[in-house]
Amino acid sequence: MLELDIRGVSQDIIGSENGLNIQAEFENYKTQIADIVSDLYKRKDTPGEGLQWMNLGYSQETSWYVKEYAALVENRFDNILVLGIGGSTLGGIAITHALLKPYWNLLSKEQRGGYPRIFFLDNVDPDDINGLLDIIDLKKTLVNVITKSGDTTETMAQYMIIKDRLEKELDDDYRKNIIVTTDKKTGILRQISEQEGYKTFVVPDDVGGRFSVFTAVGLLPFALVGINIDEITAGIRDLDAQLKNTNIYENIAAQNALIHYLLDTKYGKDITVLMPYSEKLKFIPDWFTQLWAESLGKNKTIEEKPIKAGPTPIGAIGARDQHTLMQLFNEGPNNKVINFVRIGEFDTTLDIPQIFQYTGIGYLGGKTVNNLINAEADSTQATLIDYSRPTITIKIPKVDGYHIAQLLYMLEMQTAITGALYNINTFDQPSVEQTRNYTYGLMGRIGYEGSAKALHDKLEYV
Amino acid sequence: MLELDIRGVSQDIIGSENGLNIQAEFENYKTQIADIVSDLYKRKDTPGEGLQWMNLGYSQETSWYVKEYAALVENRFDNILVLGIGGSTLGGIAITHALLKPYWNLLSKEQRGGYPRIFFLDNVDPDDINGLLDIIDLKKTLVNVITKSGDTTETMAQYMIIKDRLEKELDDDYRKNIIVTTDKKTGILRQISEQEGYKTFVVPDDVGGRFSVFTAVGLLPFALVGINIDEITAGIRDLDAQLKNTNIYENIAAQNALIHYLLDTKYGKDITVLMPYSEKLKFIPDWFTQLWAESLGKNKTIEEKPIKAGPTPIGAIGARDQHTLMQLFNEGPNNKVINFVRIGEFDTTLDIPQIFQYTGIGYLGGKTVNNLINAEADSTQATLIDYSRPTITIKIPKVDGYHIAQLLYMLEMQTAITGALYNINTFDQPSVEQTRNYTYGLMGRIGYEGSAKALHDKLEYV
Repeated sequence: MLELDIRGVSQDIIGSENGLNIQAEFENYKTQIADIVSDLYKRKDTPGEGLQWMNLGYSQETSWYVKEYAALVENRFDNILVLGIGGSTLGGIAITHALLKPYWNLLSKEQRGGYPRIFFLDNVDPDDINGLLDIIDLKKTLVNVITKSGDTTETMAQYMIIKDRLEKELDDDYRKNIIVTTDKKTGILRQISEQEGYKTFVVPDDVGGRFSVFTAVGLLPFALVGINIDEITAGIRDLDAQLKNTNIYENIAAQNALIHYLLDTKYGKDITVLMPYSEKLKFIPDWFTQLWAESLGKNKTIEEKPIKAGPTPIGAIGARDQHTLMQLFNEGPNNKVINFVRIGEFDTTLDIPQIFQYTGIGYLGGKTVNNLINAEADSTQATLIDYSRPTITIKIPKVDGYHIAQLLYMLEMQTAITGALYNINTFDQPSVEQTRNYTYGLMGRIGYEGSAKALHDKLEYV
Repeated sequence: MLELDIRGVSQDIIGSENGLNIQAEFENYKTQIADIVSDLYKRKDTPGEGLQWMNLGYSQETSWYVKEYAALVENRFDNILVLGIGGSTLGGIAITHALLKPYWNLLSKEQRGGYPRIFFLDNVDPDDINGLLDIIDLKKTLVNVITKSGDTTETMAQYMIIKDRLEKELDDDYRKNIIVTTDKKTGILRQISEQEGYKTFVVPDDVGGRFSVFTAVGLLPFALVGINIDEITAGIRDLDAQLKNTNIYENIAAQNALIHYLLDTKYGKDITVLMPYSEKLKFIPDWFTQLWAESLGKNKTIEEKPIKAGPTPIGAIGARDQHTLMQLFNEGPNNKVINFVRIGEFDTTLDIPQIFQYTGIGYLGGKTVNNLINAEADSTQATLIDYSRPTITIKIPKVDGYHIAQLLYMLEMQTAITGALYNINTFDQPSVEQTRNYTYGLMGRIGYEGSAKALHDKLEYV
């Protein structure tokens, strides 16, 4: 089970100018926290609340369909190509990188146990897309188009290009190489999928993109590369049993939510760092960054008083970023909360040989790389404590589907509770519409001529 | 030539609460800026000042040695494996990713023009290192060990493991598979290299790790994978001719330094975002992050008044991160300066086919992906202006060695000038020593028993 160690934010450890009186704050907030948690669980099935992600551990139906389809296409494709952006791909990238063997796409098919390579196209850089199309054989590629709304510009442009090429290579058979994950009923991609006869999967209602990793958005690509998705859903269910506990002393998501909220609003620590000590977890911060930024970065005025919400998330990777960011974290402004993610047990051990014994590096011989990365993390935390910086450690016993799912689900719940503490709407992203409309205008979409004109007026100075 | 568009920080565009009166500020600071620039150029050859990176565009000797060696080993190896961390690898990763064909390590040797694949090991995760060692044939791998000090713990641990395995596979011949980049005279690795008889390259004095990309640290790996390093040094030289101009109106590095300094110190915009709209440039922010954080994140007290220095750098990638961070950048706290990096011309064009003409995505047909990514960047900037957020655009005409080098060199110079404005030492990193000592203690290095004890006392609570 996931564990949280919060002692590094205590004023007993880092002093009362930067640290919290944890016991007193838990007492102050225990009623509010209990109300928030019980309210989330009460509203989770209510349409329009955006809380269906809380049910995903229990959704046996999706798992069943996904597994059935994955079994059907086993051994049929050399590559999985996921088209999507933001919440449609970040969870997939993070979890496949964590759970597949390292350097997966460089392994032979045999080393991959017969499973395909996996690529995510999550941008619209012409050189990058051309580069990828140069190296994969589309005929042997299963393309999974993912967009909840069904008209995300970047994803639809990718889809149009690849559909066109697939059709040229495979004639009518190309339909077997495209699967779609989108809204159950609405949207252009749903409509096209039905006309074209693609196999489709559903992004359920009331699950926003950044909370969608445990829908078919993530589960389908996972199953296609041989990841056991039952372990993932089991991990969520088991953690969920704890997170529904309204007692802050027993709810780690609530604890971390309250700590971040208080350190931001009382002490101005408005930067949230997530720093896994693991290469396998190196894309988790990208996923978290969207979750935290897009959920909490809101402008809200209550009774004419603006609410200051929106801590800025930053990813870092240990031990590497000790050599890049840590000087700033130690001696720069004390405006950050550093969340370490530590692994109990790595999958493998790597010995450092006993050579150069009589030189200045002799001390490393006979130790393991495992010892070293753990010593680095301890040393970094100790230094941050020396500089009175708040630190938290999230511990996962092992990088497997069960625990990775718990890590992501805990951070989702933490985000929901933090949003409730700030009293904002955690589940919308209003300002992004504006950008979309400008882009529609510039790309000539009918009905958006006004947006194009407004943009030209604004950027005319350029 | 690199260009800078600073109009997006003007108070005429985003209002006087968040924007600058650029003309007035340039006038206020023109003397101080001229002094800083002329002082940097005056001191650049003085030993101990840490400014030798300003001479790297002119260092024909290094280029000559690097090219000679690269020619010697051409076609001899299938893989280049760089061992290093922080400043020893981030520039190499950023530039090779930018200049090599996309998906380089997945291309066939023929597609790579006969040049080897390239891997960077910049962490001490046992699963990751074991994974890499499983897929590369060390006999056909040239290992470049890079550490300025010669005793960076992570790098030396990697080196010990790989040297031991190479020796087992190749007997005495293993020496031909190891090359070393380190200090000219001092350090354990220099000493070992001489005993062992490795080919070595030099990190010059007075070039800190984060400013070392244009020494052999970067140039050697570049040349080994076929990158033309003469274009790189030419780019630096040509830009340097402009950056030595003490007139702020004609010096883009000085302009961007002053803008960031003022927006931080006068308006509390203490987060610096670097956001290239390009997959090829996607690792440039990681390199910049170290440069900006480690150089400026300093605690300094002058006449008992603490100096607030240390803007926090964040990387983002356009268009992708419009879907992750932009909601926060638009509506969250107005505490960020967003630096776009825009490409004039991509290497390739990618057409969006005219299909689905009578659906809601028909408008995309007949356009190019190039149109789209540019429209996205314009739309994002326009939205940020709507929300009164300061934006800057760094324009590079093309992603090639000449212009990439200019981008990095401009950011180095900007960092040096910003540090001078804050009146801090830009070139040290004192707090990192403390962490290093704890790690030495935990790993049992003789003489560091006290550090180990101090750490155990501190983390005993854990």
